Amino acid sequence: MAHSVSPLAPKTYPELPEIAGVRFATAEAGIKYKGRTDVLLAAFDAGTTVAGVFTSSKCPSAPVDWCRDSLRDGVARGLLVNSGNANAFTGMKGRHTVEVSAEFAARALGVKASEIFLASTGVIGEPLDPQKFDAATKEMAGRLSSGPWMDAAKAIMTTDTYAKVATATVDFDGVTVSISGIAKGSGMIAPAMATMLSFIFTDAPISSAVLQGLLQPLIQKSFNAVTVDSDTSTSDTCLVFATGKAPVDAINAADDPRAAAFAAALGDVLHELAILVVRDGEGATKMVTVNVEGATSDESAFRIAQSIANSPLVKTAIAGEDANWGRVVMAVGKAGEPADRDRLTIAFGDFVVAENGERAPSYDEAAASAYMKNEELELRVGLGIGTGHATVYTCDLTHGYIDINGSYRS
Amino acid sequence: MAHSVSPLAPKTYPELPEIAGVRFATAEAGIKYKGRTDVLLAAFDAGTTVAGVFTSSKCPSAPVDWCRDSLRDGVARGLLVNSGNANAFTGMKGRHTVEVSAEFAARALGVKASEIFLASTGVIGEPLDPQKFDAATKEMAGRLSSGPWMDAAKAIMTTDTYAKVATATVDFDGVTVSISGIAKGSGMIAPAMATMLSFIFTDAPISSAVLQGLLQPLIQKSFNAVTVDSDTSTSDTCLVFATGKAPVDAINAADDPRAAAFAAALGDVLHELAILVVRDGEGATKMVTVNVEGATSDESAFRIAQSIANSPLVKTAIAGEDANWGRVVMAVGKAGEPADRDRLTIAFGDFVVAENGERAPSYDEAAASAYMKNEELELRVGLGIGTGHATVYTCDLTHGYIDINGSYRS
Repeated sequence: MAHSVSPLAPKTYPELPEIAGVRFATAEAGIKYKGRTDVLLAAFDAGTTVAGVFTSSKCPSAPVDWCRDSLRDGVARGLLVNSGNANAFTGMKGRHTVEVSAEFAARALGVKASEIFLASTGVIGEPLDPQKFDAATKEMAGRLSSGPWMDAAKAIMTTDTYAKVATATVDFDGVTVSISGIAKGSGMIAPAMATMLSFIFTDAPISSAVLQGLLQPLIQKSFNAVTVDSDTSTSDTCLVFATGKAPVDAINAADDPRAAAFAAALGDVLHELAILVVRDGEGATKMVTVNVEGATSDESAFRIAQSIANSPLVKTAIAGEDANWGRVVMAVGKAGEPADRDRLTIAFGDFVVAENGERAPSYDEAAASAYMKNEELELRVGLGIGTGHATVYTCDLTHGYIDINGSYRS
Repeated sequence: MAHSVSPLAPKTYPELPEIAGVRFATAEAGIKYKGRTDVLLAAFDAGTTVAGVFTSSKCPSAPVDWCRDSLRDGVARGLLVNSGNANAFTGMKGRHTVEVSAEFAARALGVKASEIFLASTGVIGEPLDPQKFDAATKEMAGRLSSGPWMDAAKAIMTTDTYAKVATATVDFDGVTVSISGIAKGSGMIAPAMATMLSFIFTDAPISSAVLQGLLQPLIQKSFNAVTVDSDTSTSDTCLVFATGKAPVDAINAADDPRAAAFAAALGDVLHELAILVVRDGEGATKMVTVNVEGATSDESAFRIAQSIANSPLVKTAIAGEDANWGRVVMAVGKAGEPADRDRLTIAFGDFVVAENGERAPSYDEAAASAYMKNEELELRVGLGIGTGHATVYTCDLTHGYIDINGSYRS
């Protein structure tokens, strides 16, 4: 089924720089979709390090299992991604498919299969025939290039209505280090480790151990802080590949001051990609930032923000442009976290609708209603019992979500 | 907004017996709705015991706070319920409203305010004027009667499309003890202690301590085992009133063998009311029983069943009559409970769609699709790693839910 482009799609897309040491190609392997690319092959020069985080699902896909194994060595020479089939819940057949697929990619690139990373996204539970990748990997290996990144972002889309790219640079003593990232994701978005699929490429020279240490906390404030529908995928994968081609000394220790500068830039890319995923949430017409402060801890604030951001009643009220703070109270209450009803403050944007446990004396229904007509909304909750704070990004719940997900698979 | 009656509404309603010691009346107090009853006053004879469970929300409504206090004495002489306004998140005004309302009811019935139980359901965050109850309680007290129960069930409805009643009897040495119950609830249904509102009446002579002890575990398999939209109300209240008018010896000890017989009948009533709530789930077109077995514990099975029953992707697939077992795998995986992907068995009704971690060899897409067209569906998940089991009841997620909840409050 084709869906029109999200009204929240970005108006412009950044031009992503080439990353020295990374080349790629896309192709039509005919896995499920017709008339569009559905496979991405990337090659990394020798010396490329890698870090990754994956879904916390107890039923992960076969490619997630494969990547967890490959990640142990911390080196990467290739990446093979397909859309249209997630190779999840495919049992022994799924394991066979990842082994054979990695072998095809490794042969095409002249590297070891254990240096290949794999990701698949699409329908769950259908066998994925690895033979689809035999000719495609050979053919793509013959025409690898360093751009354009938009092609790579398009090949990994499923129900996405636009391609998701982001970039940042960081300066090390006059040398510019670049970070370019792509992501896909629209539904089944409540990442518990990373989002559906995201791949970040940089020419920074950085050890895999340092990179892995930087990545984990950044994920918490980017992909883990977005939700479309509270459903966590079997296939969530975020991989960062660092080719080390930038002519600067390698970052081999976590306390190297350049690690923090690099982390800030990497964090920007991850955050921007995560926001792009929410803005393409299935059926979304509004983007909502949920800010919770005054909780007993950051973790508690995060769980309360998630409870609000995942509430079907809050999300349908937002779709209806209704400043329904009663449903926000409900969502705070059901989170099970420490809260004192009578200290609660709730605001939509700058409009305080409730304070001290009841409707604010300054409440102006007309002003609040007018605010709700905006495409981008901020929902602020003050708990007044501590200093913990957190932000979660979500979208509204509309007929579009039902249309997209209530139709038959075929 | 008026909504058509749920297609899952019962075809017939049982005739509820009078309960000796209970009389009631309903009236139009004009709280929010026009042209329908919105207040219920019940009077209990002296000697009536009471037990209750309430929402686990951290932001409970003012009537819930009031009932928790009143419950300490274990005796009840009156019940005042209104629909149209939940008196939740109403601060000091809300506390004042419950005090004044209880006083009105107590005066009208000639009892103490502390013997009055209160419940309110409807919009959250709007002040509720207690003066609405002054004339109404006096007027109702003048025409109390022991039936018909359907009138009581109708007066407490909000977005419900039909009234919910259930009854059972239990025989104690030739004496018939009766239990009659009513409930309301359609959205904001993921009870964490009880459902929106349910009131059960019996002529059994039973101490409040024994009654409270029986009620708690029965709730777990009835109201706590249903979900419409994963949103837990601020106002969940289930109260059981026992008048003691049946001419049998009082049940004053939990190990009295008649307590177990009474609990079985009470459990039947609670379960039937809980199912009626799910069948009236906002926008529901299908009723789904989720059975999970083979988990490491009953608690673990329950959390996995909840994860499935609350998943928007599972619920939209069911609305689309799609035997999408991949989404069931996703929901098992995201529950965070022990699970082994490769031992998982999934069946829709008698059709095993997946086993041993992949699509079942016997899988017949046409047969599974035909089954999904039924109005009542069973979804069975076998984890194969233990003996824990649980059942959760839910409904599908349709455009109707968005219609009902995406419209403006006024």
